[in-house]
Amino acid sequence: MNLLLAGSFDEAERAEWALALRAALPGHCLLLSRDEAPAASIAAAIVANPPPGALQGLPALRLIQSLWAGVDRLLADSTLPPGVPVARMVDPAMNAAMAETALWATLALHRGFFTYQCQQRAGLWLPHAQRRADELPVLLLGGGQMGGTAAARLAALGYPVTVWRRQSGASGTPGVQVVAGDTALREALARTRVLINLLPLTPDTRGLIDARLLAALPRGAGLVNLARGAHVIDTDLLAALDSGHLGHAVLDVFHTEPLPAGHRYWLHPQVTVLPHAAAATDARSAAAVVARNIAALAAGAPLANLVARDAGY
Amino acid sequence: MNLLLAGSFDEAERAEWALALRAALPGHCLLLSRDEAPAASIAAAIVANPPPGALQGLPALRLIQSLWAGVDRLLADSTLPPGVPVARMVDPAMNAAMAETALWATLALHRGFFTYQCQQRAGLWLPHAQRRADELPVLLLGGGQMGGTAAARLAALGYPVTVWRRQSGASGTPGVQVVAGDTALREALARTRVLINLLPLTPDTRGLIDARLLAALPRGAGLVNLARGAHVIDTDLLAALDSGHLGHAVLDVFHTEPLPAGHRYWLHPQVTVLPHAAAATDARSAAAVVARNIAALAAGAPLANLVARDAGY
Repeated sequence: MNLLLAGSFDEAERAEWALALRAALPGHCLLLSRDEAPAASIAAAIVANPPPGALQGLPALRLIQSLWAGVDRLLADSTLPPGVPVARMVDPAMNAAMAETALWATLALHRGFFTYQCQQRAGLWLPHAQRRADELPVLLLGGGQMGGTAAARLAALGYPVTVWRRQSGASGTPGVQVVAGDTALREALARTRVLINLLPLTPDTRGLIDARLLAALPRGAGLVNLARGAHVIDTDLLAALDSGHLGHAVLDVFHTEPLPAGHRYWLHPQVTVLPHAAAATDARSAAAVVARNIAALAAGAPLANLVARDAGY
Repeated sequence: MNLLLAGSFDEAERAEWALALRAALPGHCLLLSRDEAPAASIAAAIVANPPPGALQGLPALRLIQSLWAGVDRLLADSTLPPGVPVARMVDPAMNAAMAETALWATLALHRGFFTYQCQQRAGLWLPHAQRRADELPVLLLGGGQMGGTAAARLAALGYPVTVWRRQSGASGTPGVQVVAGDTALREALARTRVLINLLPLTPDTRGLIDARLLAALPRGAGLVNLARGAHVIDTDLLAALDSGHLGHAVLDVFHTEPLPAGHRYWLHPQVTVLPHAAAATDARSAAAVVARNIAALAAGAPLANLVARDAGY
């Protein structure tokens, strides 16, 4: 089959993805530009935030496979061909990377390591009281593959973990409780020491982390946002940090990326800024995930990781 | 039995330990000062770096139980009564805390979080290439209870873990290899990305982390010292950092503590200074560990966690 790779890559990234995808897709032809073959011959598009309009006029298109886990920008493109199935990336290496970042941030908040790094710059030697992991409830917003992996690893270290997702149910992981709904969210927030956001960005979740939600946390809690900047109302978050109600925020994602020079987050002593580096798709394992879906498409078998386009994830 | 509590505590610490120990030792009498009972009535001393001479002239003393895991300072006291068994602290909460610190430091070195925090202060948005945990071999020096707990947790996250200890043997933990001897140490160092020190301080291990050992690491590796400052030759470590051979050092312990003002470690951009906070003994769980040894003493049963005084640990 003819497959089109379309994305907002730099040259090195495009070359890396082309190499990994071609190695995983022998017997198929990966096009790096629409000029390389007739539009009507392209059966699937493999995309990473393609420029708007990039997928228009492809009459034989039967799959849009994203290389990124988040598809909010892709689905926001009004020129995206309607009716063509969209699959998101579910990459085990990316799930592991996201869990690593969640674990690192939780350990740092739990054990005071951000505080110690701040004290170091002031030349201050001051150990703080040590709490056990079981005294530090963690709330994960989002119970998808990434939330599930992070929850299991946090629970294995002894943290009491609650996962908030659209539907409640059994977690299947010891030490992990799954809840749903607004009331359960308020109850969970009230006992949370570390709040980790791994939600998809949808009309329902945009702006969820606002003054009201932050006020429901106990004083001194920490926030870790690894999902999308638009989940957060920045002015509310800054107010909660400035008042001391929120102890610290670890932010990997922002309304505008790169985070603009001069933004208050850059120099805020209670904010750790990461350059959208919490978890990258790993080209090596992701190419194998793409190949499995392309093989299913070729065989007429069910496609994996399909997005509910109306729900937005 | 009459038990003497002797240590270099401040008043709040002494009160916390007295409370926890008395709750765990009903039926025994915990003395906070030698004046409270005749010297010949004291059967055991519960100690935390007691002042030199504090245990002299106690003819009935049958156990010196340390509240700290490290007994190098205790054994260096030439007035320590000879022939009296010395037990060190083996506290599950402390083992867990040490493993948390080792995990946090490894994740931060692996995923570039120290670099991102440095970049944040410069207002620099620059993601770096992401490696999988299985691409990051970790070498733990010391295979005691703390090393074993840390090794198991690191291996569970996918890091290839080697433990170097006095005797080689099976690790009993999947993903953890145990080695011993100088040759095996050199071989392991050559493939190590993160080196974690959890050794006891003895004449054999003092100054072990010197220019020769650091030179055996690949360029850019990280060092995490959670054991004793005297394991490290500071001038050699600073030279390895300044040359770029060593990428970063996380140091919890120092030759002099608190780390003196003006010491180069405080402001070195590749050094993270912690105020000897990697793992504190937890009074609640440690008191139960003490109580089990006191019960054994009272019953004439074998004592646990005894130190080989000639070996120094």
